Amino acid sequence: MTQRETDQSTRTPRTGRRPGASSTREEIIAAARQLFAQRGYDGATMRAIAGEAGVDAALIVHFFGNKPTLLGEAVQWPFDPDVEIPKLLADGRRNVGRRMAELFVRTWDDEGDRNPILTLLRAGMTEPQAAEMLGGSLRLCLFGPLLERLGSDRPDLRANLVASQLVGMGTVRYVLGFEPVASARPADVVAWLAPTLQRYLTGKLER
Amino acid sequence: MTQRETDQSTRTPRTGRRPGASSTREEIIAAARQLFAQRGYDGATMRAIAGEAGVDAALIVHFFGNKPTLLGEAVQWPFDPDVEIPKLLADGRRNVGRRMAELFVRTWDDEGDRNPILTLLRAGMTEPQAAEMLGGSLRLCLFGPLLERLGSDRPDLRANLVASQLVGMGTVRYVLGFEPVASARPADVVAWLAPTLQRYLTGKLER
Repeated sequence: MTQRETDQSTRTPRTGRRPGASSTREEIIAAARQLFAQRGYDGATMRAIAGEAGVDAALIVHFFGNKPTLLGEAVQWPFDPDVEIPKLLADGRRNVGRRMAELFVRTWDDEGDRNPILTLLRAGMTEPQAAEMLGGSLRLCLFGPLLERLGSDRPDLRANLVASQLVGMGTVRYVLGFEPVASARPADVVAWLAPTLQRYLTGKLER
Repeated sequence: MTQRETDQSTRTPRTGRRPGASSTREEIIAAARQLFAQRGYDGATMRAIAGEAGVDAALIVHFFGNKPTLLGEAVQWPFDPDVEIPKLLADGRRNVGRRMAELFVRTWDDEGDRNPILTLLRAGMTEPQAAEMLGGSLRLCLFGPLLERLGSDRPDLRANLVASQLVGMGTVRYVLGFEPVASARPADVVAWLAPTLQRYLTGKLER
């Protein structure tokens, strides 16, 4: 399920039912998801999220403890790993770098400023808890299952190296806007990244 | 000149001379440099910088206009390109990737949280003007002169690609702290990065 579809489903008209604890919790998460996407991690204050959800800020602390935890609950992966991982492997080991570059560029091009990975990344630049959450999500949702199926040695190291290239390209192309990469065609970005990702995923690592 | 040496030189005891406009300007820059390094871009408020420099915040606006401009004036490159670029080329074209990886790891390991590139990068994640400044500094101080001497085609594109890998590794190893890369030995990080940087600097680009 994409971020956008999720947002729409959480914005269905409210029923007249008086909200219990669990629906209040969901409304806080929906409000947080919306404000994190619109205003970023720093801009989405607990007070603003409380206002959007129509609850007291103290209730958010009661449910979630702190802002990084709320962020972790609110951020949803922008693609379904169960669907995408088999596609990454569909052309065999020798093409997994290209397939991963394609998935990266497609996802980041589609999501734009609403990209939840970008929200986590920005937060992780200053919040250790958000950094841990980003690392955990990447490992759990994507790199763990992918590298297990690839059967490469040193999967954690390879995951770090792939992350370093993708986090960096995400930052340079989509956040910092360095030219010419920021305006380059998706197919070109894929061609430049594919050999790097391929080496990190399946190649010989010198150490 | 390193960041630390610069800080010390600006902290020499004041003379009894009544400060004119130019020394006030320098004191503001010194205060900004110190607070950006200690508290990061968001944490170093204009008010705090004014307090540290012993001036009114309005005077900072008068001299520098806004915070991104002040950041640009305050940030100093953590190495001297005139010294380092010849070293990058000392072993010939075929080793420039390894040499650049070494320079990167050495600089970031040494500088730690005081790394001015990291201050610019964090600021650039949310401030377009800081992003432009980071791109301009990289081009002017490092990639421009280096790629000119290498004589590679498409120097701007190659600079972007190298930046994408270095920004990403800087983020993953030094900010997000992903393991095992965060604790890896410098020589290992160099070995993993060198072939990627070499391809981006001198290799065939597929598009």
